[in-house]
Amino acid sequence: MDVAIVGASGYAGGELIRLLQTHSEAEVVTATSRALEGRPVSSQHPHLRGYTDLAFSNPAPGDIDADFVFLAVPHTAAMNYAGALLEGGARVVDLSADYRLPKAVFEAVYGVPHTDYFEAPYGIPELRRDEVRGKQFVSNPGCFPTGATLAAAPLARQAAYVIYDSKTGVSGAGDNPSATTHYPNVADGVNAYKWTSHRHLAEMKQELAALGSSAHCFFTPHLVPVNRGILTTAHIILKEPMGQEEVEALYRHFYQGEYFVRLQKPTLSAVRGSNFCDIGVESEGERVVVVSAIDNLVKGAAGQAIQNMNIMCGYAENDGLKVPPCLP
Amino acid sequence: MDVAIVGASGYAGGELIRLLQTHSEAEVVTATSRALEGRPVSSQHPHLRGYTDLAFSNPAPGDIDADFVFLAVPHTAAMNYAGALLEGGARVVDLSADYRLPKAVFEAVYGVPHTDYFEAPYGIPELRRDEVRGKQFVSNPGCFPTGATLAAAPLARQAAYVIYDSKTGVSGAGDNPSATTHYPNVADGVNAYKWTSHRHLAEMKQELAALGSSAHCFFTPHLVPVNRGILTTAHIILKEPMGQEEVEALYRHFYQGEYFVRLQKPTLSAVRGSNFCDIGVESEGERVVVVSAIDNLVKGAAGQAIQNMNIMCGYAENDGLKVPPCLP
Amino acid sequence: MDVAIVGASGYAGGELIRLLQTHSEAEVVTATSRALEGRPVSSQHPHLRGYTDLAFSNPAPGDIDADFVFLAVPHTAAMNYAGALLEGGARVVDLSADYRLPKAVFEAVYGVPHTDYFEAPYGIPELRRDEVRGKQFVSNPGCFPTGATLAAAPLARQAAYVIYDSKTGVSGAGDNPSATTHYPNVADGVNAYKWTSHRHLAEMKQELAALGSSAHCFFTPHLVPVNRGILTTAHIILKEPMGQEEVEALYRHFYQGEYFVRLQKPTLSAVRGSNFCDIGVESEGERVVVVSAIDNLVKGAAGQAIQNMNIMCGYAENDGLKVPPCLP
Amino acid sequence: MDVAIVGASGYAGGELIRLLQTHSEAEVVTATSRALEGRPVSSQHPHLRGYTDLAFSNPAPGDIDADFVFLAVPHTAAMNYAGALLEGGARVVDLSADYRLPKAVFEAVYGVPHTDYFEAPYGIPELRRDEVRGKQFVSNPGCFPTGATLAAAPLARQAAYVIYDSKTGVSGAGDNPSATTHYPNVADGVNAYKWTSHRHLAEMKQELAALGSSAHCFFTPHLVPVNRGILTTAHIILKEPMGQEEVEALYRHFYQGEYFVRLQKPTLSAVRGSNFCDIGVESEGERVVVVSAIDNLVKGAAGQAIQNMNIMCGYAENDGLKVPPCLP
Repeated sequence: MDVAIVGASGYAGGELIRLLQTHSEAEVVTATSRALEGRPVSSQHPHLRGYTDLAFSNPAPGDIDADFVFLAVPHTAAMNYAGALLEGGARVVDLSADYRLPKAVFEAVYGVPHTDYFEAPYGIPELRRDEVRGKQFVSNPGCFPTGATLAAAPLARQAAYVIYDSKTGVSGAGDNPSATTHYPNVADGVNAYKWTSHRHLAEMKQELAALGSSAHCFFTPHLVPVNRGILTTAHIILKEPMGQEEVEALYRHFYQGEYFVRLQKPTLSAVRGSNFCDIGVESEGERVVVVSAIDNLVKGAAGQAIQNMNIMCGYAENDGLKVPPCLP
Repeated sequence: MDVAIVGASGYAGGELIRLLQTHSEAEVVTATSRALEGRPVSSQHPHLRGYTDLAFSNPAPGDIDADFVFLAVPHTAAMNYAGALLEGGARVVDLSADYRLPKAVFEAVYGVPHTDYFEAPYGIPELRRDEVRGKQFVSNPGCFPTGATLAAAPLARQAAYVIYDSKTGVSGAGDNPSATTHYPNVADGVNAYKWTSHRHLAEMKQELAALGSSAHCFFTPHLVPVNRGILTTAHIILKEPMGQEEVEALYRHFYQGEYFVRLQKPTLSAVRGSNFCDIGVESEGERVVVVSAIDNLVKGAAGQAIQNMNIMCGYAENDGLKVPPCLP
Repeated sequence: MDVAIVGASGYAGGELIRLLQTHSEAEVVTATSRALEGRPVSSQHPHLRGYTDLAFSNPAPGDIDADFVFLAVPHTAAMNYAGALLEGGARVVDLSADYRLPKAVFEAVYGVPHTDYFEAPYGIPELRRDEVRGKQFVSNPGCFPTGATLAAAPLARQAAYVIYDSKTGVSGAGDNPSATTHYPNVADGVNAYKWTSHRHLAEMKQELAALGSSAHCFFTPHLVPVNRGILTTAHIILKEPMGQEEVEALYRHFYQGEYFVRLQKPTLSAVRGSNFCDIGVESEGERVVVVSAIDNLVKGAAGQAIQNMNIMCGYAENDGLKVPPCLP
Repeated sequence: MDVAIVGASGYAGGELIRLLQTHSEAEVVTATSRALEGRPVSSQHPHLRGYTDLAFSNPAPGDIDADFVFLAVPHTAAMNYAGALLEGGARVVDLSADYRLPKAVFEAVYGVPHTDYFEAPYGIPELRRDEVRGKQFVSNPGCFPTGATLAAAPLARQAAYVIYDSKTGVSGAGDNPSATTHYPNVADGVNAYKWTSHRHLAEMKQELAALGSSAHCFFTPHLVPVNRGILTTAHIILKEPMGQEEVEALYRHFYQGEYFVRLQKPTLSAVRGSNFCDIGVESEGERVVVVSAIDNLVKGAAGQAIQNMNIMCGYAENDGLKVPPCLP
């Protein structure tokens, strides 16, 4: 199956190419970049030298010739591609935020009009696999909402308050230098940002509600001196106290058979480079602490997108996603 | 004034020596270490070479000859020194946990009997300055409780739930190598530990209660790849919503005139090496996020101990604590 | 082919298991550890949970039942295994230092007697592939000598002085906590160690001499705050000046067709997790700077060991070593 | 004495303000910044909040009213200020490169014409104190040349080859975000840059020659994931072999009485925040390894500038420079 990656110069684009090297059916034939048109992919992604001879191209949306397309572009850019691609018959996973929320919510949260809205499944397979199966278009969740929602989902109905305190690596900010990513501003420090106003909160609330939760939901992200990974500490105040064994049993049952969810003490290094979400729980009766660890570029972006592709296309769900994590 | 530091080989001991270099009245005349007896202080603290010619000594508690003594020893060790020193007439600040909690609470939390208990002021000057003034013995607060309590104190009575999510640098674990502090286990990662059971929680609850709070109080610490500093994110669920301006005014009023509390966006680098606690607040009505930043070895240990010494002895509260932080 | 890993609890052991997941012929059936006998491999290597159900075992050397054995044990331990394994018919790669040097050199450098010496090929395939092919036993090079020797080899005969200044990540020190690996002693710093006396220097000199070099060879390693990887800067003083184009052509020719050597600006992230050695060169006439980057646990240990296994057994040289590096 | 800092928004400017807080005679009365004119200094340097109420100003060169001026501006900018300031009677230390080299060398190395050249002492006090004393204008050395030259100086005449392999923290690149300083490009890696062509090499050669050396001098800098500090490993090939004791004695004699040079195992943390240069030596006969550690922003910039100011003005050489380093 021929695959195109629109916006292949960034970290998520690089990860899509890396992971698809090991996919049994998919082959990347097109990698687009406006800024790097004509340059070899390996000039931007030197780790991939020897794996791909592709050069970046810059086709118009209607000229992308592929069976499957990943949109790895910033929000508001994907809406310029999706319609044309779908009309052309391609299947598409959109990694941007453009189709994750209802139109009105999107426009309120992102502060821009949506110029080509349609409904799309929210591709978090562990919770919505049936909605993804066989679809032509799927919206890939945000990095924070993926780790946070998987942490809280089993307790969604029992929770009175869900407070997500997330710690993210810097690759989540993309490969564009800024004051936020300036080494001396990050190293040997921890920075809370968008303390109450991060856009991903809307997805988190949407998913809790979809699970039947009435919990009040809050979110504060922090930047930590880490390259990859998000550790989310979900502080969950329960309506009724639950004991440790009960909570553990609930999580084991909820995620039984899920290849990409592992119930063990979560650390970023144990998931690095992989599509796993490791989850641990500890109850003190009234409050449960649930911690999840994902690789923000894989389960939080490229890996989950491939997982969605596999479900859409009927491949094994872990095809291209079997490479073990890299520790330390 | 002659000063002795009992347990001077560790990080807190080193910081006491460093900071007291700039004190106008105090001079370190004794630095004890059982393991390093006879060796120059600068062999263990190479940054202090040229500042002190002291060698480590190992006197019995009754043989420590000094006007003021800092106990920078592990918990259960301080209780072997305090009585003898006080009888000898010295004034003492204890940096260990031995006198921070009522006897029964201490014994329950630390799982050991207290063999020489007496009551002591809990030396967090911004909240209990009057209890410290003129005293012969003061117990220095734990590092986490200092940053956490200063973050939540102004809202103690308005809070229904106070959830402290703290991120600490590795120096808090001391200078003894362990799996916890093994570089590859720390770098490029974030680790939650003692998710619901950290011993410092007892101090946090004690201080909230002392402020008249009825809030449910929770605490989860995380180890981040940082040398120094604790950033505490206090997620506070209010009984009644409060707006941003109201909360800001409350904090400004509460900390008015406090030299060591600065109300500005907290970052670890802006307090590094100093006794400052920088605090920021953001309200979303029902929840308020308060973030505090301290240097765990200074405001969280040696610096606050000197601050207490100054108050006990009638010196200027910031004597020896005026060195600016070091950024980046 | 059944594979046993002796000493599977360390980083190199973990990497052997990780990489062999993707090998088409080899399967790990035995993973030994004296200290962790009976515990699941995934308890020590949590990233491998889901990949292997093995538990650590602790067989006597004569009871190891496998077609191929990797000795991932400290020096002086391998000499207790090698003889018995070879007599039993297994093929073996030894990752320790026990068979890298002539007996007298080994005993002088490591300060211990060699109790079971025999000659073995030094398995650096890019330079000695023919010596490895079809052999029953191969000695795997040290991490520093691998990156250093590959950097200097093409200029070995032209060099008057070769000075290797290496910067290594901390995983090279193993997974045992020590003052050397204590986070605050490593982070935000750089430490030179064994300035003139590192044991790997003997291998470096041996390999230069084997290439016909008469250069004086020096080596100083540095520990940098990095988890994985060695960047070696080879400062080469030439007997006769050479221009940039001439040097580049020499390196292109020398490494033509070598899958695992890539001539491009070397960075640790571009080789992380992989068996690549990236090399760059810059001449200023009299001096040439050659920089190489390897992953110390892969090309510097487990990966090169598998590469040797593949050559010994007649598999494709990159079988099990095709997983792309992980950047950033 | 009234002090003005031209270019006070950068790291060196911030360090000048920090260090001068503790100077007994100097007071910062003017801090200029074109971009931040009118904003409080503490908005850019939050660690200094509470120490200074200054706001950035933007006066013309002729309108700077101060007894002493530090030029902390990029190269080519200082030459627009120096003349006017000197005519106005101020004493000046220039931290830029504009007056470190003879005119022709400067123009060749920096590729720009020098529009207001005059000769100035090169202010490395340990080697050229007499040239600095009482002068009105002094040029402050570059960060790399300071640590490198102090490492090699005692062996300058005995050396045949001097190869400086330096490892620098990221603050040396300034506070302007770029791909070079983008966190994921720096963290968990080491990067050689300007392998043979760094501009500071000209200063290094100049200083060796001034010491009577005929050595061939080379320099390769590396960026390491560190905020502050430069560790320089000087690989020195001697004309005639020297033993360890002889070399040590040479260094002890050479730096006898120098307050800011400490002969001990150099680590970045032991000098952080301070004006010290820690130096260690190890001889293997033909080659001597000398390692120096400095804080690039202090001994490599602001601190040495204040040291020069003190010598020019007749203050104690360590006035304002007595604050102990901050470890870990």
